[in-house]
This record gives sequence, C-alpha cells and structure tokens, in this order.
Amino acid sequence: MASKSEISFIKSLHQKKYREQHGLFIVEGTKMVNELLTSGFSLYAIYALETYLPSLQISAKLPENIKIAAVTESELHKMSAQRSPNKVLAVAYLPQDAVEDDSEQWRPGAMWMALDKLQDPGNMGTIIRIADWFGMAGVIASEDSVEFFNPKVVQASMGSIFRVKLQQRDLVQTFREADVPVYGALLNGESLYETGFRTPGILLLGNESQGITPQLKPYITHPVTIPAFGRAESLNVATAAAVICSEIRRKGS
Amino acid sequence: MASKSEISFIKSLHQKKYREQHGLFIVEGTKMVNELLTSGFSLYAIYALETYLPSLQISAKLPENIKIAAVTESELHKMSAQRSPNKVLAVAYLPQDAVEDDSEQWRPGAMWMALDKLQDPGNMGTIIRIADWFGMAGVIASEDSVEFFNPKVVQASMGSIFRVKLQQRDLVQTFREADVPVYGALLNGESLYETGFRTPGILLLGNESQGITPQLKPYITHPVTIPAFGRAESLNVATAAAVICSEIRRKGS
Repeated sequence: MASKSEISFIKSLHQKKYREQHGLFIVEGTKMVNELLTSGFSLYAIYALETYLPSLQISAKLPENIKIAAVTESELHKMSAQRSPNKVLAVAYLPQDAVEDDSEQWRPGAMWMALDKLQDPGNMGTIIRIADWFGMAGVIASEDSVEFFNPKVVQASMGSIFRVKLQQRDLVQTFREADVPVYGALLNGESLYETGFRTPGILLLGNESQGITPQLKPYITHPVTIPAFGRAESLNVATAAAVICSEIRRKGS
Repeated sequence: MASKSEISFIKSLHQKKYREQHGLFIVEGTKMVNELLTSGFSLYAIYALETYLPSLQISAKLPENIKIAAVTESELHKMSAQRSPNKVLAVAYLPQDAVEDDSEQWRPGAMWMALDKLQDPGNMGTIIRIADWFGMAGVIASEDSVEFFNPKVVQASMGSIFRVKLQQRDLVQTFREADVPVYGALLNGESLYETGFRTPGILLLGNESQGITPQLKPYITHPVTIPAFGRAESLNVATAAAVICSEIRRKGS
C-alpha cells in the first residue's frame, strides 16, 4: 500500500520543478525498471503490483536500504505518468551531469550529438536511443531543451537513458571551448553522402520547427544535408539524427 | 457556425468505422489544409475560424460546390482530433487505393515499403513522410496495420499522405505475386552497409514490438540489419526505415 501523501509525492515528480527539488525521477514498466536495476543509477523506491514483486526480486539484486512496496492497480495508476501503467514504477536519483575533463570528452573517435532547443520529449528519448545504438559519445542538450529526465523522455529512450552520457549546457560556450568540427544538419549544406566526418566532433541538430538557432550557425564548420529524392519539405529531427549517425558509422568515423 | 449534428458527424470521422461508412477523413491545421488544397484529393467541407477564412481563400482556388463555414474556437475544438486545433479543419474524400497494373507497380527503380502489422499512428505517419523524402515508390501496409487515414497518421505525415502512393492489402499475396527481392529489416541479417539493393523491390518492416511475423519471413530474400555500435537493443521502426531508405538512395538503387 502507498499512502496518499506518497502518491502525491510521486506524482509531483512528473514535474521538472519537483524532480529538481528532490533530485529524483521516475522510471516505469517491467522492462525499463529491469534496465534501471542493472544500471549504475541509484534507487530510491520501487512500487509494484503484489503479483509482480516476486519476479522483480528474482530478476535483479536489490539494494537493501530502499523502499519496496506492493501497490494496487489503482494506486499505480495514480502515481503513473503513463496511460497504461505496466506493473511497476521505480523512483531513482537524478545523476550528475556527465562532465568529463576535456581530454576524455574530446578524445579521438568521440562524436557527440548536440541538440538545440529540442522540445518534444518523444524526439529526445528517440535521439538518446539512436545515440546508444550508433555508439555516439553522448548527447549535449541546450539549456532550453526538454529535460532528459522528463518521464516521457525516459520511457521513449527504451533504457538508453541509463547508458548514454548526457549533458545539458550552453551550446555556444561548448562550441567555443571544444574547438572541434561542428556538423550542422541544415537544408542547404553539403550532401551527407559526400561529407567526410572527423572526430572528435559534434553533430548539431536543431529545433523541431525552427531548425538551428541563428546564433549557433556561425559555429557550424560543416553544414550537412540529407539529400531529398521526393517532395517532403523536411524530415523529423530524430529521423534525420538516425540517418546522419548511420552514415557517420558507415564511413568508420 | 456549425450545427450540433454537423459537429457530431465530423467527430464520428475520428473513428475508422465512420470514415469507411462515409468515405471521408479529416485534415487539420493551416499547413496541412493548404497541402490538401493543392493536392489531387477531393474536398467535402472546410471549417475555419472567421479570422482565418480570408487567408484560406487567398492561398488556394477552392472548388465551388463544397461547404465552407466559419466556426468558433469552441466549435473547432469539439470537431478536432487535436489537443490544440490550429484554425482550420477540412473534410476530404478517402482516395481509392493506388492499385496499379503490374508493369507500373513493379517498374525498374521502384522500391516499395511494406509494413507488417504497424500499430502506432505516429510511426505510420513518419514512415509515409520518410517514403516521400526518399522517393520510395509507395507504402504497402498489411490489412492489420493502423489505417492510413487515421487522423493521427494524417497529421504525422506532415502532408506526405497526399503525395505517397498508399496500398493496404495482404502481404503474403503481394510477395507471391510480385516475385521481386524482399529486403527484410531483421536483427540478424547482412549488414545494411554491405547489402546491394536491386529494384523493383520491397523493403519489409515489422511490428513495433514483435518485428516481422513468422509467416512472412520465408518471403524475405535478403535479411538486412543496421549494424549496432552501442548497447541499445533495437531502433524504433520509423528510425530503421529512414536509415535503410537513405542507404538505398546513397547506393543509387
């Protein structure tokens, strides 16, 4: 059983303000919670349907000092940010930003993705999953992008949120300090297929409707375009990210 | 003004049953409706905010015999399948399936996308947009896939729904009759980067969680895999579609 105040505490974590205040975020569903349990993230609590508790304890070694409670379907529904909650909800501590020293961050072979004002949590989660699949160095999001630990981002990442290095920080400053090639996804750049990619480097993707902010454009050293063969005006930003990451890897950069 | 019965008629078109019964579907928002107006689709009616009506009439020549009505924000909201309706909603006639004779359908250069039990309307719309961008011959969806003219599919296609050839039909029968190479996106196929693509051909993509149905696998002549460089278990189906279509085009197939 979860008390009313516990339920409203967990519901408060649907909002950024309270996630930041408490340093906690939520993870939902059997698959995601199992991934959380095998990740390096620290757990705060787990709420599961009574019937699911045994499989949970079998599937992973749980730390001893965390709260584990059985809840009813109705309680789980009240806590959940999902329309159809799936048996279990975990609360974990927000990680520190993966800030590394420069020689590690900009090591040879490292291709970071930088996201400018990315707004849609589904896109953010999908891009984190793409970064994981293609072995990108990590994802750097501008400060005005949707937050990495928004529940919709967490779920859309399909577990990749636990594996990909994530940094939220000022992009202009990042580009100035890094002094590495910046490949910007634009509609009027060089053909992706002709572009040579060098690492360490950054692949920059823009906002869903406005593209890359004018203030960031001067930092693009290589404008890159996915050639169009039909009449669509644009591709979704996560789609574009995947196509470019694939081509970077195909070329062995 | 729209009458109560008009509003509930339009709301009924949110459901497949009534779309099929009336042979109509809805298109929303200024950009999408403008694309509709310049497409070959036949209009049935347009409902727009009073303030938007003039720009609508300027932006495209309207047929004379269709209903055009000014509606209030509240009326538009009631008709709409969107959370935030955007000034205008149009009702158009469902097109006939783009059935072509075999020599046209399987012409040299034609690479069709085939979708097996695709369930998510956002994925379907995104894949139609991808087919448009990369100039695929069209999209063939299995009969148990989400319907092309579901309002969420229409909106996610960003206008590509009006341009891409769409067929919903039995895939086994299609593969049998076509007798062309079938490139199936699987997790244990040949590397995408090593695969040679020949046209006419079919790129087959599976269901979001189950992948390609066992009954369809015997028809795959070339299993294709997007190489993984990290630890993600899979890519979203629309993401995979884009990566493969891009590689097909890069190779000039």
